[in-house]
Amino acid sequence: MNKLEFISRQLSRTNNKRYESYAIHRLWHKLDNADLKYVTQQYVKRNDRYYLTDLYLPQLNLHIEIDESHHLGRAEQDGLRELDVIEATRHEVARIKVSNDLEEFNYAIDSVVKRIEDKVSKLKEDGEFEAWDLEKEFDPEFYRNKGYLDVSENPAFRRIVDAANCLGQNAVAYQTAFIRSKVYENHHLWFPRLYKTPGWNNSISPDEMYIYEKPEDESNTTSHLERVKMLGTKRIVFPRVKDNLGIVLYRFKGVYEFDADRSDKTNGVVYKRIASEFRI
Amino acid sequence: MNKLEFISRQLSRTNNKRYESYAIHRLWHKLDNADLKYVTQQYVKRNDRYYLTDLYLPQLNLHIEIDESHHLGRAEQDGLRELDVIEATRHEVARIKVSNDLEEFNYAIDSVVKRIEDKVSKLKEDGEFEAWDLEKEFDPEFYRNKGYLDVSENPAFRRIVDAANCLGQNAVAYQTAFIRSKVYENHHLWFPRLYKTPGWNNSISPDEMYIYEKPEDESNTTSHLERVKMLGTKRIVFPRVKDNLGIVLYRFKGVYEFDADRSDKTNGVVYKRIASEFRI
Repeated sequence: MNKLEFISRQLSRTNNKRYESYAIHRLWHKLDNADLKYVTQQYVKRNDRYYLTDLYLPQLNLHIEIDESHHLGRAEQDGLRELDVIEATRHEVARIKVSNDLEEFNYAIDSVVKRIEDKVSKLKEDGEFEAWDLEKEFDPEFYRNKGYLDVSENPAFRRIVDAANCLGQNAVAYQTAFIRSKVYENHHLWFPRLYKTPGWNNSISPDEMYIYEKPEDESNTTSHLERVKMLGTKRIVFPRVKDNLGIVLYRFKGVYEFDADRSDKTNGVVYKRIASEFRI
Repeated sequence: MNKLEFISRQLSRTNNKRYESYAIHRLWHKLDNADLKYVTQQYVKRNDRYYLTDLYLPQLNLHIEIDESHHLGRAEQDGLRELDVIEATRHEVARIKVSNDLEEFNYAIDSVVKRIEDKVSKLKEDGEFEAWDLEKEFDPEFYRNKGYLDVSENPAFRRIVDAANCLGQNAVAYQTAFIRSKVYENHHLWFPRLYKTPGWNNSISPDEMYIYEKPEDESNTTSHLERVKMLGTKRIVFPRVKDNLGIVLYRFKGVYEFDADRSDKTNGVVYKRIASEFRI
């Protein structure tokens, strides 16, 4: 047993992946910057494949991988339908090689600390760094000021009413997951559960281009199809997911439209994405 | 949820005590000193009571308590008979108050970091700091050079042969837990298991003044008593225990002598401590 093994066993006796845990902790304490948001074990979609990243720094669009960890391939996709998956195609990935030498491993981690610090300094110089603010990060006003929602920026809200008010509804609360827009003609706001629920077996395709809405009882499909056709509007979609701490989130996934060609008794009602950005 | 709760949940989702874990990790990474040994969750005996300390720095005789944790009182003693318990009567204790404010909690931890750094500097100035060396810390030569074993310094060995050679046996290996000393007249080296094992129900008193050696089958007590009387020697005792990582250790507990007055069918064979120091 060497020092690294000893210390990491001491520090993380109840953790599953000792060296990963050691690196994640060290990054946090060496950076020592409460203005940076840290998200561990984030599910991401990257070039239509799903991965689990060890650490995600949203403000930097940066993921940190500790190389002993195991990653999810596309095969696991079914298991994460209820979970929050972010779009990470244009994100950077930094890798930390696990070494069983304490000094070497610390050095590898501290090099990434330096890289993160440099990125933060650069953003600050360019006036583009926004300190992490837990109170404000899901604030509808932030996106209203921005003027748009873009899937590649992974906007999300804690409550249906926040997403709705971001799009001009001016409501106090909502008990429904389907809201006709007061502001945008022929648009509905939709907060679906894209996974199996009582009565429904909804899903989203791996490339997120199609949403499938399927009643569990196939005999209901036809009547539901007729209803959707009647509505005939576009849907601004915020699927309900759980983040990595188990807290509910409504993550913007784009604007979808009823797809008459693909919808039938087998597929259920199908919606096709027509935009990944929406101007507020 | 505030930042501290968020971060500590992120960092320690599989740990039981999030804030304690946060503090223990931060102490390690902020000190960033591989020459300091860290032991988490060490059982200690302090003024005849047993405690579990959150972090123990052996070179400094310092224990760190994170105040949300729960401590063992004397009542729990039975549960830790197989475990390594160190003598901590003359040790210092530093306490870190858990706060639910990230900055405040970091400040409390960093104050203890400062206190530890000052202690290390002082020891270095006085030429009394010995860097932690995993290879050498259970080395018999260390105690031979020192010239004595003292219970209050918690000497321990990884193998029976190391303890034996520290006391001049010059052996390669031992298959036995009871060795007649070649060097010290009328002394045996004894490596007992002071807990229930097949055939035996041995124990040590909370103040460690008495060792009780009891055959499970009481009818064997008399014959064993006769044998011990015949041997009639002093015993240098290193009970076999498991450290907090589950690794076997032989921890010096003093010199004991057969106690004829206390030994009987009910108590079994009793040994009384006659010295807590032994000159090599």
